[in-house]
Amino acid sequence: MAGKSLMYKILEDHLMEGELKAGTDIGIKIDQTLTQDALGTMAYLEFEALGVEKVKTLSVSYVDHNTLQDGFENADDHKYLQDVASKYGIYYSKAGNGICHQVHVERFARPGQTLVGSDSHTPTSGSLGMFAMGVGGMDVAASMAGHAFHLICPRVINIKLTGSLPAWCAAKDVVLKVLSILTTKGNVGTALEYTGEGIASLTVPERATITNMGAEMGVTTSIFPSDERTREFLKAQQREDMWLPLAPDADAVYDDVIEINLDELEPLVACPHSPDNVKTVAEMNEIPVDQVLVGSCTNSSYRDLMVVAAMLKGRKIHPNVSFGVAPGSRQVLEMISKNGALADIISSGARILESTCGFCVGCGQAPRSKSISLRTNNRNYEGRSGTKDAQVHLVSAETAVASALTGKFTDPRTLDFEKPNITLPEVYDIDDSMIVKPAMDAQQEILRGPNIGNPPSNEAMPEVVEAKVAIKVGDKITTDHIMPAGPYLKFRSNVPKYSQYTFCHVKPDFADTCKANVAKGQFNIIVAHESYGQGSSREHAALCPMYLGVKAVMAKSIERIHMDNLVNFGILPLFFTEDADYEALECGDELTIDMNDVAFTSGEFIVKNVTQGTSFSMKTPLNDRQKEIVRAGGKLNFLRAGGK
Amino acid sequence: MAGKSLMYKILEDHLMEGELKAGTDIGIKIDQTLTQDALGTMAYLEFEALGVEKVKTLSVSYVDHNTLQDGFENADDHKYLQDVASKYGIYYSKAGNGICHQVHVERFARPGQTLVGSDSHTPTSGSLGMFAMGVGGMDVAASMAGHAFHLICPRVINIKLTGSLPAWCAAKDVVLKVLSILTTKGNVGTALEYTGEGIASLTVPERATITNMGAEMGVTTSIFPSDERTREFLKAQQREDMWLPLAPDADAVYDDVIEINLDELEPLVACPHSPDNVKTVAEMNEIPVDQVLVGSCTNSSYRDLMVVAAMLKGRKIHPNVSFGVAPGSRQVLEMISKNGALADIISSGARILESTCGFCVGCGQAPRSKSISLRTNNRNYEGRSGTKDAQVHLVSAETAVASALTGKFTDPRTLDFEKPNITLPEVYDIDDSMIVKPAMDAQQEILRGPNIGNPPSNEAMPEVVEAKVAIKVGDKITTDHIMPAGPYLKFRSNVPKYSQYTFCHVKPDFADTCKANVAKGQFNIIVAHESYGQGSSREHAALCPMYLGVKAVMAKSIERIHMDNLVNFGILPLFFTEDADYEALECGDELTIDMNDVAFTSGEFIVKNVTQGTSFSMKTPLNDRQKEIVRAGGKLNFLRAGGK
Repeated sequence: MAGKSLMYKILEDHLMEGELKAGTDIGIKIDQTLTQDALGTMAYLEFEALGVEKVKTLSVSYVDHNTLQDGFENADDHKYLQDVASKYGIYYSKAGNGICHQVHVERFARPGQTLVGSDSHTPTSGSLGMFAMGVGGMDVAASMAGHAFHLICPRVINIKLTGSLPAWCAAKDVVLKVLSILTTKGNVGTALEYTGEGIASLTVPERATITNMGAEMGVTTSIFPSDERTREFLKAQQREDMWLPLAPDADAVYDDVIEINLDELEPLVACPHSPDNVKTVAEMNEIPVDQVLVGSCTNSSYRDLMVVAAMLKGRKIHPNVSFGVAPGSRQVLEMISKNGALADIISSGARILESTCGFCVGCGQAPRSKSISLRTNNRNYEGRSGTKDAQVHLVSAETAVASALTGKFTDPRTLDFEKPNITLPEVYDIDDSMIVKPAMDAQQEILRGPNIGNPPSNEAMPEVVEAKVAIKVGDKITTDHIMPAGPYLKFRSNVPKYSQYTFCHVKPDFADTCKANVAKGQFNIIVAHESYGQGSSREHAALCPMYLGVKAVMAKSIERIHMDNLVNFGILPLFFTEDADYEALECGDELTIDMNDVAFTSGEFIVKNVTQGTSFSMKTPLNDRQKEIVRAGGKLNFLRAGGK
Repeated sequence: MAGKSLMYKILEDHLMEGELKAGTDIGIKIDQTLTQDALGTMAYLEFEALGVEKVKTLSVSYVDHNTLQDGFENADDHKYLQDVASKYGIYYSKAGNGICHQVHVERFARPGQTLVGSDSHTPTSGSLGMFAMGVGGMDVAASMAGHAFHLICPRVINIKLTGSLPAWCAAKDVVLKVLSILTTKGNVGTALEYTGEGIASLTVPERATITNMGAEMGVTTSIFPSDERTREFLKAQQREDMWLPLAPDADAVYDDVIEINLDELEPLVACPHSPDNVKTVAEMNEIPVDQVLVGSCTNSSYRDLMVVAAMLKGRKIHPNVSFGVAPGSRQVLEMISKNGALADIISSGARILESTCGFCVGCGQAPRSKSISLRTNNRNYEGRSGTKDAQVHLVSAETAVASALTGKFTDPRTLDFEKPNITLPEVYDIDDSMIVKPAMDAQQEILRGPNIGNPPSNEAMPEVVEAKVAIKVGDKITTDHIMPAGPYLKFRSNVPKYSQYTFCHVKPDFADTCKANVAKGQFNIIVAHESYGQGSSREHAALCPMYLGVKAVMAKSIERIHMDNLVNFGILPLFFTEDADYEALECGDELTIDMNDVAFTSGEFIVKNVTQGTSFSMKTPLNDRQKEIVRAGGKLNFLRAGGK
């Protein structure tokens, strides 16, 4: 019998339903969950709606997104989250304690366990040999309630790293290299498993940078083995008892193998407006930069910040550059404040930003119009920075600092000083006092500010859907396009209000059009092309369309998390069989789709275009369980009716 | 001949026009100017319109307000400010270098000199024996261009401090005491001069807290003598050569004397929603607090932060409290990062916010609905925090930290530990690398983002004004009521856009009403009662109404800076002679006012109420020069036509 991948070993340990065969539906037991505030409020409202007394998982509720607090809505949400956590047995990580993925790696992630999180970068914990997936809030809620988590068993690609990182090359360059190979499209149903002699030289924080940006490829998750590096890290976090050695079988069989020789790496950059638009930093021809930002769940570990500090010590940021640093967690911030590194960063002329997601999700630090912004985070989608025409580039912390010092794109290998040698501490400062332990008091009052409503409900799918095409878009539409973050994110707990901003930067009248159609007794349809729903796991990208009467998304392909979210909110994903059908459709077209037993059973749906007088067939990629959920009008209805 | 106050000595040294007689118009030479970004962009646009080659003053342009950057507008403004500064000979203090008043005291303020700043808290520099006033941006522009600055020569009240501060009482408690006596109303044309044996025990940063909050009383400015404390401070800032001894004559005559015995002070708190609503902390009965914030130009000096750190060392913030700290300047932040104090603050569970105005001006940290927020800043106007129904209380840093530790209002005298003893450093860390020196290059290109337009122009005042009452308000309307800050502040360089938000929280249809009236050939009138235009010096509170066709503000009384701003933008201030006339007026009434020579010469204006068929007389408080400015349609027109 062929050897197993590490991923399949963990899945096997947790398997509750189905069998481990790539492409088929499986149900697994979830050990841990995490949420962040932007997507957490809705997840807990959904959890409350399930009527369970306590969570069945080790669950942590982080506040790291909306910490600018430019309105009462944010702090109202924080209070709600704290109260809910206390009542239902969830750890509550206060605003200021850090970014969920950074803190989770430091304090909670466990080799061999499973984690779902309502944030697409949850695979960051894969750096510790954990099976960690980003999912929609509804799936987190169901997992907390003890339901099996269903996923399509992934095919596994082995990324084999050989050699070791040359000076001034970083983990970020490794994952940018992988992105340049796999791109951001076409990886649905795939997972990445890192092996090879090269991984021994990568510390857990470096591995975390790599697993983190698997999200940009749309893979199910990414994982590293649990080895001596893992043990060192857990020991330094005073969690050595959580360690166990985990590795794929020596003769493990993978669906594909990609070999990357680290020795050959160069400093890389993802150019606007996609993380897979990769060039070498050298190719950027020293063009001047306006803004440089270090931080986010991708690059703000203790290790990253120590590199930054060592490079900045005794040097000054270029006067034309606005340089900001957001340490990833309170642990990181506290340690660099004690060892002098923070002072070196401040002395250089850096702006110290709060230990949150911040600029990565467009919450602050919007650059000036048409400017060049270099960032260490993971996404550079158009407009995500808050400035539509800004040119955002993704780089390593090393390249970021080199460029901030010179005021132009700078390959750090051209600097006139040596790369600093950072040794990780034998013991990190452990202080979990900003992680509030749940009181588990059933009498706990839950304060609900005026912005917090019940999750909107949905009806079962009608037998016949009469609808209009409310929008037609192209390739690589991200959930940021569907539901913008930044200043709009504060409305996340108020679906009627947030819905008004659906597609607002793409088609400003989308919400009004949908409402007008519904008022006339018609539903709505979204038409898209390839890789619809990339990026963030925000379920609002399905929830708000549901609220606006969207019944189907017709596309060439849909990304994994978003597809699950569509299902969770009773929206049917349909795939074009002929590209000509996509081409022919026009915004405003009136469609009729039979949604009866025959269609759901066969998976083939006949779409009549009343406006054009044509008719064509589409296929749903859903399995039987998912079809049932869609027909019920979403997962809340499905679970409440006894669905599993 | 009677002895002179220190204030009159400085004014005498700088007198260019008029004579030093309280209540009369004088013109003085200005040595220094400062601006911050929120009000600076417009000031520099106005300066550019004056067509001068270089500034005639030592001028500093700070970026400290809009540093959250939730849209391209803010960074566009920062770039414009940096370019203008470089071209015209102005120092540019980058975002992250700190709050203008804190940095100005540290690095620029000079005993015996004059300073105008487009921020109402400019009198903070009065702590160093400087005559420092908050003014509108147009007046800063005119001063930079070398024009005399005109003001009403103030009457001077002597605040005589005896005794010394008891343990756990702070400078903040001193100024809250003064506020409880003088209130926020009725102090137009008054200035405060601090003397007495009690001042010897107050360091410059403590004095700065006191002069800072003179702004809340609406006084012209506040000043301390330049003495040994001043010398120590300047020496520690490596600016001892700027020091000179300055004091009032021993037999100085004042218009009034208020004696405060520091020995009798208690920890105080300004309750919602006015800084003069003062109680003792003990009276607050330990009610629970939700949010505690330390920072702002009032309380974020090195001394303040060292007190905060010493109190927090080895202790933890209460789990139900969100506790944020914003150090006042990069110097403060750098020093506490080097000496371990910042690590103590971080270890306690504090959120570290950027060194900016931030929460004080509603840029972030909006508390949750109906929550209790304790803050060390200077204003607690309703809604200024960003949360309309939040209960914001103003306290000292000592009371703030005590309450953050216990989770409830806590008089620090009841704590079970001793008040820390803070000694100020003999030498501060001096590093001005975030203050960019001007290149003085006449060829400097000035980049203007799409949000930056020309300052709107105005016509000369017509002979007859036919207008409608567009709004009628009551007492103590602040400039925050007129032009909200927070998320709206980013539109400050775009008057057509920002105007749309005029009075938006008071009368949401105000802008539309004004525009509709103008479209029908009618102007607009604002009707108010006592102390109209309190608070911030933002000239947009006059500029935006001007843009909306407002020609007069009818009130019982108007605060100083706002009155000057009205004049600068060609809006006539009129005072009611009978309260019954105010009572009778109704929103929507159609008025006719003769604005001819006779009226302007006499200062008496006949208002015909066409709607009610009545008529009454009003008086303008303006002097001849101010009347000329109003008739010209504002200061830009006046100066361009050769006015002085």
